[in-house]
Amino acid sequence: MGIRRQLYEILKISDKKGSLSWQFDVFLITVILLNVLVTIIETVEDIYKQYRLFIDLFNWFSVIFFTIEYLLRVWTIVEVPRYRHPVLGRLKFMLSPLAIIDLMAFLPFYLPFLGFDLRFVRLLRIFRLFRVFRVAKYIKAIDAIRHVIRHKKEELLVSLVFVCFLLIISSCIIYYVEHDAQPDAFSSIPATMWWSIATLTTVGYGDVYPITPLGRFLGSIIAVLGVGLFAIPTGILASGFSEEISKKKSKSTVCPTCGQPVKEHTLKTPEANNSSN
Amino acid sequence: MGIRRQLYEILKISDKKGSLSWQFDVFLITVILLNVLVTIIETVEDIYKQYRLFIDLFNWFSVIFFTIEYLLRVWTIVEVPRYRHPVLGRLKFMLSPLAIIDLMAFLPFYLPFLGFDLRFVRLLRIFRLFRVFRVAKYIKAIDAIRHVIRHKKEELLVSLVFVCFLLIISSCIIYYVEHDAQPDAFSSIPATMWWSIATLTTVGYGDVYPITPLGRFLGSIIAVLGVGLFAIPTGILASGFSEEISKKKSKSTVCPTCGQPVKEHTLKTPEANNSSN
Amino acid sequence: MGIRRQLYEILKISDKKGSLSWQFDVFLITVILLNVLVTIIETVEDIYKQYRLFIDLFNWFSVIFFTIEYLLRVWTIVEVPRYRHPVLGRLKFMLSPLAIIDLMAFLPFYLPFLGFDLRFVRLLRIFRLFRVFRVAKYIKAIDAIRHVIRHKKEELLVSLVFVCFLLIISSCIIYYVEHDAQPDAFSSIPATMWWSIATLTTVGYGDVYPITPLGRFLGSIIAVLGVGLFAIPTGILASGFSEEISKKKSKSTVCPTCGQPVKEHTLKTPEANNSSN
Amino acid sequence: MGIRRQLYEILKISDKKGSLSWQFDVFLITVILLNVLVTIIETVEDIYKQYRLFIDLFNWFSVIFFTIEYLLRVWTIVEVPRYRHPVLGRLKFMLSPLAIIDLMAFLPFYLPFLGFDLRFVRLLRIFRLFRVFRVAKYIKAIDAIRHVIRHKKEELLVSLVFVCFLLIISSCIIYYVEHDAQPDAFSSIPATMWWSIATLTTVGYGDVYPITPLGRFLGSIIAVLGVGLFAIPTGILASGFSEEISKKKSKSTVCPTCGQPVKEHTLKTPEANNSSN
Repeated sequence: MGIRRQLYEILKISDKKGSLSWQFDVFLITVILLNVLVTIIETVEDIYKQYRLFIDLFNWFSVIFFTIEYLLRVWTIVEVPRYRHPVLGRLKFMLSPLAIIDLMAFLPFYLPFLGFDLRFVRLLRIFRLFRVFRVAKYIKAIDAIRHVIRHKKEELLVSLVFVCFLLIISSCIIYYVEHDAQPDAFSSIPATMWWSIATLTTVGYGDVYPITPLGRFLGSIIAVLGVGLFAIPTGILASGFSEEISKKKSKSTVCPTCGQPVKEHTLKTPEANNSSN
Repeated sequence: MGIRRQLYEILKISDKKGSLSWQFDVFLITVILLNVLVTIIETVEDIYKQYRLFIDLFNWFSVIFFTIEYLLRVWTIVEVPRYRHPVLGRLKFMLSPLAIIDLMAFLPFYLPFLGFDLRFVRLLRIFRLFRVFRVAKYIKAIDAIRHVIRHKKEELLVSLVFVCFLLIISSCIIYYVEHDAQPDAFSSIPATMWWSIATLTTVGYGDVYPITPLGRFLGSIIAVLGVGLFAIPTGILASGFSEEISKKKSKSTVCPTCGQPVKEHTLKTPEANNSSN
Repeated sequence: MGIRRQLYEILKISDKKGSLSWQFDVFLITVILLNVLVTIIETVEDIYKQYRLFIDLFNWFSVIFFTIEYLLRVWTIVEVPRYRHPVLGRLKFMLSPLAIIDLMAFLPFYLPFLGFDLRFVRLLRIFRLFRVFRVAKYIKAIDAIRHVIRHKKEELLVSLVFVCFLLIISSCIIYYVEHDAQPDAFSSIPATMWWSIATLTTVGYGDVYPITPLGRFLGSIIAVLGVGLFAIPTGILASGFSEEISKKKSKSTVCPTCGQPVKEHTLKTPEANNSSN
Repeated sequence: MGIRRQLYEILKISDKKGSLSWQFDVFLITVILLNVLVTIIETVEDIYKQYRLFIDLFNWFSVIFFTIEYLLRVWTIVEVPRYRHPVLGRLKFMLSPLAIIDLMAFLPFYLPFLGFDLRFVRLLRIFRLFRVFRVAKYIKAIDAIRHVIRHKKEELLVSLVFVCFLLIISSCIIYYVEHDAQPDAFSSIPATMWWSIATLTTVGYGDVYPITPLGRFLGSIIAVLGVGLFAIPTGILASGFSEEISKKKSKSTVCPTCGQPVKEHTLKTPEANNSSN
């Protein structure tokens, strides 16, 4: 087995606890999570001032680590049959969404050397966060939510359409009613949508709210309707998620009479009863 | 087949993908959705100033298009047995809610030519939005929510009665408790209802809230009770909606023992078991 | 049948649509609901000024009507075996909660004649609202919620205990953390409870909120925990209510195999299958 | 039976209503709940000033009572086989979490005599509240929630991971978008998390909110997504709790066919039907 094959085996996700590949996965996840932590706390000025050296060193270490890891991945990917071709296969891999996310995570750090504006580059550093999605590959439970969304796609779409309908209609109504009384808060329909979202999700910041009697009356009706309507996709997601995981728990035991998933193991089927006659 | 018949066939909703009638439906929905989009963005002053010509042109195109479409619909509607009579049938159709909505969508644009006040006319343009309801006819899933509402009518009504009870009683109590401390915010019971709605739906804008200790104590109890009570219709809607769609998915497979909808196809009924004895 | 018996029959709740007693019930409910409406709108100064005469006349009519109705009820109640005794039976009836509510509804109007302070009397007029509870007797669906509460008593109590626990502990923590930074907003633990209630119910008026980093950190944890915990009684109520009404719909049809309520009428029990063998 | 044994029997939790041990439990719970009440109301300055003597006396009585109770518990604990050893057993008991909580409840009151700073000591008095957890041992229903959390551990963890993901990503995005417009409100990513928590839990205090169009647009999407995602653990908890208690109610009656809990007692199993053939 060549060195490329060995490296590929180490870089890919491993299930075998304790193996070298598994240890590398643990190290990679740790570096990613530490990166997220550093990205969060380096925005706190006091902390950044005090630990500047440590934070900068860690950032450079991460950039170099992710660069090497990326290059090795590109080099070894030809071990996968799908990316076999030495040039086209590697290009195909580099253009896959996850590889682009990986690239975006460290590329902005090299841009200043290429003469790019530093302020623009700082903004791009947010892409580092997307490395979190790499961690997602290691969490099997992510599949659960993906299944729920695929399973309940129809329900979610319909309820989203309703929510959009209500969002548009309520924004238009409140805009026409409140615009003259509060030309700043309700300056346009898209601006009024900010109020609608805050009301329909029941967040209610309180920065904008209707003040005319008619606006308040219609706003009340919208709030009541909206709370009910917004609860529909929420309820669907919650019940779907609950079903999904309970289904996983008892995958093969289904009541032979009504086909519903069975939780107890002491299942007595009618067949068994009849054959004992 | 006369031209009227042909036109009627094109104008009515078609299921046959790719047919002329289906293409017309797609075009109509596109125009309606573009209208909604334009209605929303033309309220943003900067956009309107810049794209005034385009927006005005689109609005006039829409008005003319909907006018012609309306007139053609009135002309061809006699093809439907129910509206057969050339005068009474057409009148009957024109007085149907959906036809009135269609009429209201373009009529306000002609009013200024008849000497109507422009400001009043601008307000009427909101009716354009109701054309969205025409799109609803094309979305079959709208039936789902209609079924849920019809199916859960009783539950929803009862919980609405409770919500109204709580709304009235809480508004009265807080009005009598807070009116003297905040005569402006809680000026009357209907004004206090604005607080009640914001509290019971948990929107909580924060523009009005009790400040007296008794008001806060009673307000707390109302909030806790109200959140619970408001959740009832919400929960009913969510569960009803979920049931409705899952029922649709497995319409004919029902457990022969308990009549509940069955999800798996490997249903073994007791009959089958007995007959194999 | 004496006049007292006849009057008693009219005054009591009737199921027979169209009968004199039923007509009286309809009239009584109308008067009560109109009273609620007048109580609400008479607090709007503009409306009260304009319709003062009408409102005052209606209030006096209501008071006289309810007085007569109350006296007649006390007179005729001896027709009920439980209240047979001419003196003790009537006293027992007069001390029943619903009779006291009825008395409180009109008594405050006579108090000014007895030299009571008018301002105090105005406050007492809120009791008029409690007449709404009389309407509750006519709504059979009220039983549904009473059943739910009785059925889910244990769950509701436990979750209420949890909510109280969280309310007390979170109020104490935030009080000790925020009191020094905001001595006015978080002046005492009972005052901090106002914040806790607004946060746990997710109303969030925004009149008080933690400002110290520690307060915000702990406040965030309380918010997340609280939202989850508060949702429990809410979910229990919603599901219980939904069960209750669906149970009512199919009272006697229960799956003989698993005892769950059955919705379809084409129930095929295993017995039927066996007997056809 | 020695006095130590007798004392141990009194101090431990008793199920036998009316026994001396049971009476002691009732007294202990009363003292604890009164302590909680006093801890809450003594922070209200007016009440503390007026009832200072009574409150101080009660506090000292509680401290002495809890000290004696603690010492007696330590003395008698050797009656339990697990803590049999006179020195190590008692030390082991004293280091158990509940014993430490008990100690923390009265220890701070003795600290001023040992020269500790009074202000620091006052802060420690919050530990008195943790005595409430002692009451928890007496409420059997607490087991219900513990079961739910253990049973739904996987679901809750996964949804918590999602909530954290969304919290971090939304805070980072809004920080980068809003930081320049509102450097005070969105000073750092941890500070922005305060906005995220308020939005995702729909509390929405309204102290911080995005003001740039892009910030509002992204904030709207975060609000809608977050409300849905936050509802998942909530829904899981609510349904798990509901299941748990209904399972307890009908512990031994399970449908023999599908193993789901059975509510009705008129269960007719297929076996019974077959044997009657």
